Amino acid sequence: MDYTEKTLRRVNRYQGIIVDVSVDQVELPDGSVSFREVVDHPGGVAILPVDEQGQAWCVRQYRYPFQTHLLEIPAGKLERGEDPQACAVRELGEETGFQAGRLLPLGRVYTSPGFSQEVLHLYLALDLRAGPAHPDRGELLDVVSLPFHRLLDQVMAGEVQDGKTVAAVLKAAWLMKNGDV
Amino acid sequence: MDYTEKTLRRVNRYQGIIVDVSVDQVELPDGSVSFREVVDHPGGVAILPVDEQGQAWCVRQYRYPFQTHLLEIPAGKLERGEDPQACAVRELGEETGFQAGRLLPLGRVYTSPGFSQEVLHLYLALDLRAGPAHPDRGELLDVVSLPFHRLLDQVMAGEVQDGKTVAAVLKAAWLMKNGDV
Repeated sequence: MDYTEKTLRRVNRYQGIIVDVSVDQVELPDGSVSFREVVDHPGGVAILPVDEQGQAWCVRQYRYPFQTHLLEIPAGKLERGEDPQACAVRELGEETGFQAGRLLPLGRVYTSPGFSQEVLHLYLALDLRAGPAHPDRGELLDVVSLPFHRLLDQVMAGEVQDGKTVAAVLKAAWLMKNGDV
Repeated sequence: MDYTEKTLRRVNRYQGIIVDVSVDQVELPDGSVSFREVVDHPGGVAILPVDEQGQAWCVRQYRYPFQTHLLEIPAGKLERGEDPQACAVRELGEETGFQAGRLLPLGRVYTSPGFSQEVLHLYLALDLRAGPAHPDRGELLDVVSLPFHRLLDQVMAGEVQDGKTVAAVLKAAWLMKNGDV
């Protein structure tokens, strides 16, 4: 069935630092009128770097919304108009210092399609060359390496809970299992 | 390293339908002051139902933020104070009509831990008994079944892009591969 909703009117309700929020009046397929709250977000990239020795490189940082430190793959927001692959190269270099000989797309994910426009582009970075990291000012994080199979175990045990990390690690594990990388 | 950020002051900037937004003034570990934008969300559950014949049951619905229809596993928001497992039973019944003999936790995911408090609790539903679906008023969706291995192919091909569906399908695939379910 076609459940397309027609925008009747948009009201910008909040303009913030990372997100904006609008509330749209929409016409539903049955002709009735409803409201849709939409969080606008620039989207971003997330990169799983795995070196020749099978070590995965992650970042551990404080995530204020959960008041805790989380283990995640390197990631960052897209600048307006920025190409996702270029952004992945930039963020990987900034956070870990690595340059990747191969940057394989792992698809994109909609983090919360019910209300948010955030899209994350996932990559697997291989053939890594080390270089100096240069995190953004105010971006406080530790770079952590662990065997990829240990990271996968932590994902499966529910110890890694960041959505983009769960998605990228499992996609990469499935590709490796099938001999596709 | 401990990168804990101390809340100095919270300003509620937006109160909405699904989300609220606050901007907190925080003290960083080096003593400097910064701001953190936090989207408050009740969190939710998502359930991957797979029947005895190996069919996965999904929902196809219009996702207004992307102006398109998406294929996703059944899901819903937690009511305040609701137990996630009870919510999973309720949402599975409402959207598909199924009752699950076994509801296996697949862990929880933080959809956007940089700015959002949304947590999704994932489940694999097995030993399904069919019953009448009873979607919420205004919840327009089609229930779609396809072989689980086809759904996995669509996830790996990047054709399924909903984050919770990607995470749940790949976690379930990995458990099945290892003979754990």
